[in-house]
Amino acid sequence: MRKIEHIGIAVNDLKAAGDLYEKLLGSPAYKTEEVASEGVRTAFFRSGPNKVELLEATSPDSPIAKYLEKRGEGIHHIAFDVEDIRAEMARLRAEGFTVLNEEPKKGADNKLVAFLHPKGTHGVLVELCQDMG
Amino acid sequence: MRKIEHIGIAVNDLKAAGDLYEKLLGSPAYKTEEVASEGVRTAFFRSGPNKVELLEATSPDSPIAKYLEKRGEGIHHIAFDVEDIRAEMARLRAEGFTVLNEEPKKGADNKLVAFLHPKGTHGVLVELCQDMG
Repeated sequence: MRKIEHIGIAVNDLKAAGDLYEKLLGSPAYKTEEVASEGVRTAFFRSGPNKVELLEATSPDSPIAKYLEKRGEGIHHIAFDVEDIRAEMARLRAEGFTVLNEEPKKGADNKLVAFLHPKGTHGVLVELCQDMG
Repeated sequence: MRKIEHIGIAVNDLKAAGDLYEKLLGSPAYKTEEVASEGVRTAFFRSGPNKVELLEATSPDSPIAKYLEKRGEGIHHIAFDVEDIRAEMARLRAEGFTVLNEEPKKGADNKLVAFLHPKGTHGVLVELCQDMG
């Protein structure tokens, strides 16, 4: 848990939200990327040592589509940067957290990622992410 | 918008949530603080250059109590570190954002703070905060 790597925000319209977050953060997205396996299209913005990720659903059964239907637009998850994701997953399992992935999977922005169940973190979907270099 | 200063998480029980976030983040809260004017008790944790703030309501009409009643526990706001909060408020007003405070107010953790209305930021309650040194 070296820092907040990024905050993920679920939005209905990536273009409209991207224009607005460019104004808010003062610089344009440095990357847009589709993660077909997750049914999302993403845009990443820098904020100093951190990032803001906007997420738009690309299919009606993607987790982001379901989130938007249930809760509307807003902060979807918080991601922490970890040096060794497998070690961190093992540490957190031993502490009693529910790690949703057996093995880390490839996420957006060249990361290995895994998620903790929000029921075990006071309602917060926590992502661990390790840079693949 | 120099970095993510902190993420604010609304919780029902600051002690229980604090114990859990200590395990998650790997170190204990460095500060707990009551902000009577906001009806909240807070605990702050470090995560590298960033912080995680847990917020518990101390009165039934505090904004956190209302949030918990409506949405349950979870991420309540994202705060960005700014160098000059008045200049940033003016910039964002000129860009069309709704700044909820006429003037910055004193927040937790020795900061001057102001908030942007979530209706203008795709559902995200954004806090600006300037360190008072």
